[in-house]
Amino acid sequence: MARPFVPTRMEEPITANHREARPSGAVDTRVEGVVANWFPRFLANGLDYLDVTRILDAIENWDQWGTTWEAAGENYEKLGRDALAAGHSETAGSHLRRAALTYQFAQFVMTGDTEARRRIHLRMADTYRTAAPLLQPPATPVRVPWRGIDLVGYLRTLSDDSPLVVLIPGLESTKEQFSTFEPFLLERGLSTLSFEGPGQGETWYEHGFRDEAYVDAMRALFAWIVDRPDLSGRRVALLGTSFGGYLALKSAPGLPVEAVVDIAGFFDLKDFDNLQPVIRDNFAHFMKIEPAEIEDVVSQVDLLGTLPLDVPVLAVHGEVDPIVPVEHAHRIAAAQMNATVWLYPDGTHSCNNLHTIVRPAISDWLADRLAVGA
Amino acid sequence: MARPFVPTRMEEPITANHREARPSGAVDTRVEGVVANWFPRFLANGLDYLDVTRILDAIENWDQWGTTWEAAGENYEKLGRDALAAGHSETAGSHLRRAALTYQFAQFVMTGDTEARRRIHLRMADTYRTAAPLLQPPATPVRVPWRGIDLVGYLRTLSDDSPLVVLIPGLESTKEQFSTFEPFLLERGLSTLSFEGPGQGETWYEHGFRDEAYVDAMRALFAWIVDRPDLSGRRVALLGTSFGGYLALKSAPGLPVEAVVDIAGFFDLKDFDNLQPVIRDNFAHFMKIEPAEIEDVVSQVDLLGTLPLDVPVLAVHGEVDPIVPVEHAHRIAAAQMNATVWLYPDGTHSCNNLHTIVRPAISDWLADRLAVGA
Repeated sequence: MARPFVPTRMEEPITANHREARPSGAVDTRVEGVVANWFPRFLANGLDYLDVTRILDAIENWDQWGTTWEAAGENYEKLGRDALAAGHSETAGSHLRRAALTYQFAQFVMTGDTEARRRIHLRMADTYRTAAPLLQPPATPVRVPWRGIDLVGYLRTLSDDSPLVVLIPGLESTKEQFSTFEPFLLERGLSTLSFEGPGQGETWYEHGFRDEAYVDAMRALFAWIVDRPDLSGRRVALLGTSFGGYLALKSAPGLPVEAVVDIAGFFDLKDFDNLQPVIRDNFAHFMKIEPAEIEDVVSQVDLLGTLPLDVPVLAVHGEVDPIVPVEHAHRIAAAQMNATVWLYPDGTHSCNNLHTIVRPAISDWLADRLAVGA
Repeated sequence: MARPFVPTRMEEPITANHREARPSGAVDTRVEGVVANWFPRFLANGLDYLDVTRILDAIENWDQWGTTWEAAGENYEKLGRDALAAGHSETAGSHLRRAALTYQFAQFVMTGDTEARRRIHLRMADTYRTAAPLLQPPATPVRVPWRGIDLVGYLRTLSDDSPLVVLIPGLESTKEQFSTFEPFLLERGLSTLSFEGPGQGETWYEHGFRDEAYVDAMRALFAWIVDRPDLSGRRVALLGTSFGGYLALKSAPGLPVEAVVDIAGFFDLKDFDNLQPVIRDNFAHFMKIEPAEIEDVVSQVDLLGTLPLDVPVLAVHGEVDPIVPVEHAHRIAAAQMNATVWLYPDGTHSCNNLHTIVRPAISDWLADRLAVGA
């Protein structure tokens, strides 16, 4: 009766740990700089610490950044597609979303290789598109006509009258990355629309960032919202992270919004030349522009004359933010006057290192402003 | 019109980072050993990497273990109680649950100070009790009479006919810790009952572990389930982690269960003397016993004669498990014969370092066995 058992030996999930093999002292400064800036961002945005550690341990120099992250994403994509084939839709949605977010960081700040970046970014967008209908509630792609192109986003709605929060990404961020912020809002009765304007995500291929273009694109988005019978009656707020915090404040005048949240945004870019080189690179990519033209575009980025808004504003900033100094929050607060300002003494950029505390608090503030259930 | 803005300066969330100040070379072996064994467990069970890092950085020796973790838990407890007072029930539930899990690891393997352990453990249980009704779906405390005491657990139910998974913890684990596994089951249509038998959690105060006592307590639990009109018609499975994997297999004969999952369980304790000292300490605590009596109690722990079960069995084990060697899974597989066995080459104890992959897969396997939606 007895027979030998045949256990299923699961494959190695990702590249083996190479930390031991890394030559001592052979530190790649680009890798170290990117990790120093954004390590908490990887974790706050849906990746698992143990995965991130395995990935970073396998990267010895910047040339391996994209391929190593992509291999880790591929593992989850395969698990997700297998789960889909097996009818395990919950697992499929979860793994495909995780695959997409892993690809997100594969192409992240890859400003030196446009072709590789495009390929991985489109793979990310495609993988997330497969996950989107499997999420709870589903994420529905939206396309907003503007100047002959389509602006893109994902809409996740609750009941017909639930308020709507429009999420605006910053540099090197995407509508897909917001899939880790959306649940905090959804759990509190708020529907979400994660948006990509000029310079961002899939919209970037069609149009680089310009200040007036972004503001105009936001007007087009709101005209589209008002035209949608299922959206037009809702109360709406804006939430922007990092440069998206600036964009939310800059775009708000004239839009039918009832509250604005700025997380770690700039007041202006007058100090552009003193930003980290990697951040200046990211801006050049964002703008799709030659270095000589940057100065003019940068000079348009300014909240002077925009603030104060006549709606409630929440500004959240980490006091040890190495990317956007906290003084920008001080200036926003001074110009807005009645703003609610939360400064976290040990918060880094976007307070991603305190995400367990900051995201629920922001979501509650929005739910209170938009009177969920009232 | 302008007035000075008064931002809210948020308090430091936890003890400052003391890594810089730690004297080089002053490594506490107990701390290092516990972290080496269980670091992935902290993360897989609901804690945030950045919090865990801040906590561990502040611990210089084992005496500081409990107080440092407790301080971090207190921060979340305060945030949770403030949120409750403000009517932010989602945030309150989330922070209070996180506080409880942080206290869980404050009292974790604290076998040397019974009084401190009791105080922190009861604080953990009390904090979770406050969170329980705020979770979605709520966790309802249950009490099962047995030998003059009450066995305790938390029940989370979906629709009236959804199958039920009974979760059995191992050493140093609790019903509250399962609140990070329950969502995977709930999302897939399975109700959950997280249980504490003799030797575990709140039941420990009344009764230490004995093999026959645990099996008998499980019979009492199932008699109670069959008597509950809202539970009696459901299909039921057992899932145990670590020593709980052994307990699930050992208890199954005679119970009305349709599937059993063993995650990283023992086959027997014949190799007890070669286990890590900290694990042997944990067993002594679990049994509430003098060292001289351990041998007899340990000898009862054996699956010989119990296997094969006549229901589907899934055994999951990491091949580099430093606590329960993978050979135990080989022996379980050989004795069960038709078991489904998943061995992860780079999985550590309970495959907690691969939790993003293992937990969805196990939950899908259970949903398929219990024919959710069929």
